[in-house]
Amino acid sequence: MSSSADIQAVPSSSIASFVERVRAGDVRALSRAISAIEDNSEQATHLLKALFPHSGNATVIGLTGAPGAGKSTLVDQLAREFRKQEKTIGIIAVDPTSPYTGGAILGDRIRMQAHHADTGIYIRSMATRGFLGGLAPATADVATLLDAAGKDLVLVETVGVGQDEIDIVRLADVTVVMLVPGMGDDVQTIKAGIMEIADIFVINKSDREGADRVEREIRMMQTLAVRRDDWTPPIVRTVASDGTGIAELAKSIASYREYLKSKDLILRKKVSNWRERLVEMLRKALLDRMLHEQLDPEHLSEYAKEIAEHSRDPYSLVEQLVTEFGRKKI
Amino acid sequence: MSSSADIQAVPSSSIASFVERVRAGDVRALSRAISAIEDNSEQATHLLKALFPHSGNATVIGLTGAPGAGKSTLVDQLAREFRKQEKTIGIIAVDPTSPYTGGAILGDRIRMQAHHADTGIYIRSMATRGFLGGLAPATADVATLLDAAGKDLVLVETVGVGQDEIDIVRLADVTVVMLVPGMGDDVQTIKAGIMEIADIFVINKSDREGADRVEREIRMMQTLAVRRDDWTPPIVRTVASDGTGIAELAKSIASYREYLKSKDLILRKKVSNWRERLVEMLRKALLDRMLHEQLDPEHLSEYAKEIAEHSRDPYSLVEQLVTEFGRKKI
Repeated sequence: MSSSADIQAVPSSSIASFVERVRAGDVRALSRAISAIEDNSEQATHLLKALFPHSGNATVIGLTGAPGAGKSTLVDQLAREFRKQEKTIGIIAVDPTSPYTGGAILGDRIRMQAHHADTGIYIRSMATRGFLGGLAPATADVATLLDAAGKDLVLVETVGVGQDEIDIVRLADVTVVMLVPGMGDDVQTIKAGIMEIADIFVINKSDREGADRVEREIRMMQTLAVRRDDWTPPIVRTVASDGTGIAELAKSIASYREYLKSKDLILRKKVSNWRERLVEMLRKALLDRMLHEQLDPEHLSEYAKEIAEHSRDPYSLVEQLVTEFGRKKI
Repeated sequence: MSSSADIQAVPSSSIASFVERVRAGDVRALSRAISAIEDNSEQATHLLKALFPHSGNATVIGLTGAPGAGKSTLVDQLAREFRKQEKTIGIIAVDPTSPYTGGAILGDRIRMQAHHADTGIYIRSMATRGFLGGLAPATADVATLLDAAGKDLVLVETVGVGQDEIDIVRLADVTVVMLVPGMGDDVQTIKAGIMEIADIFVINKSDREGADRVEREIRMMQTLAVRRDDWTPPIVRTVASDGTGIAELAKSIASYREYLKSKDLILRKKVSNWRERLVEMLRKALLDRMLHEQLDPEHLSEYAKEIAEHSRDPYSLVEQLVTEFGRKKI
């Protein structure tokens, strides 16, 4: 596959008009663009290159918590709260744990209806199966897209259980970690690393017994944690289902942004996020190119067979392939 | 960092004696070797190259399930069952969801004691935080190591919630997916993709109410699934805490192996696993080399700053870096 041929396959005039429609927040154009990102298509890269200069204005808020913590209810309530302030909102719902069947699209429709077709809110679920190059880079690209489309806030919700999810929320400007009382230690298993990246804690379903205990546990953990920005993450109690605490959560998010601004830390956080994101983009791009240019599926199968038969050692093969990488170009 | 210097740093005689000690199943040597893999050290690659020709005899069994499903109890019981058949066993416990603190090493000691220091069982927990290059490749390398160390069976247990965990169990010869009754839809969220890769289902804690319902759900799902090997995954009911159903589980594992053998499918499954694993190894090795040879931490930070300030577009930068990759080499 030659990349010059791919560029020719997408007329620059059509890219330009597509970019304009995305920037105008056209819902069909947004959905098509996100699908292009999900499909890892060449078109997505052209689009993102064109859109990047128009991004950088949105605040990206990552929200994570265990399954059943009430993430989507909380995110919907938070979106409603921000709409009162006339902010436009993009929501990216990443659910890698949906049991048995997907249902993501149905879920989007139900949630869209709940917002009475408010054009100030755009919701998109990201299917996670079979993602080429990892979920985190794709989610970050979609956030950039919604940012360039003029959304003031981009809310990314995900289940806080795997490395993917940590990578996703790590790319946010503000990270909210949700806990719920009474789920027991067996179940309240959100990955340890996620506790450490929380800028704000939410105890949702805080009318349940055990909210005090959860708060004590967070505070205990905080006495051990050291943050480079010296911020003490506030603990906000909410009952997302009836809206309790949502206004306070919105205020806490604003306070953290103000704090970063006052300490001149906003750029520093963005630089640190971009370091991570660049590495992820490189990881994906390097492999993509090797699989397209150097190691076609047939070669890959042949090597796999030789390794399975123990007539070849995979560690030496990988060294050799990496050393040869790029030599064949031009 | 020059790779020839690294090779010189490890005298080949010491690698050779290290390899011999690992092959003899020396516990200290195994532990040191696994730490080298976890640390992504140059030594690990030398070791694995030397050990690979001695691997290929073990059966790797992956076990996965939701938090609280009773994985470690089941794995311990299964190990005990296989010990009755005089098999030697390696256990790799991957727990990416351990809440707040690690405790992995303490857990290993407690579990080792439960086996009365049986030298036929080796247990190692894999810490998951800050893993360079992903957990799945490292886990697969440790399985290769235990295989080369002469273990007949390598049991890999992990929480079935993220892509990492799917990648881990996908590398097994036999995949066991554990479910438990009565956890509700909110909680019993194991990733959809995992249901599809199960070769055997276990309903653990099957003395609880709801076991019939779980079995019905699995059977319903099975009517939709199409397997390339035409195997119908059996459903085994267990109560791991008192040993109920463990012998039957061991038999099911053996039956599946027999089935694959009778259909000449063992090599095909290994080839398909190695295809996946090769891709993961390449993903890691390509990025490692770029970060060591082309993009030092200072450059990376400089680029991240330019992107954060919007004076550079990351998509074009990544294209450029990937194109330049390898050009600087001799």
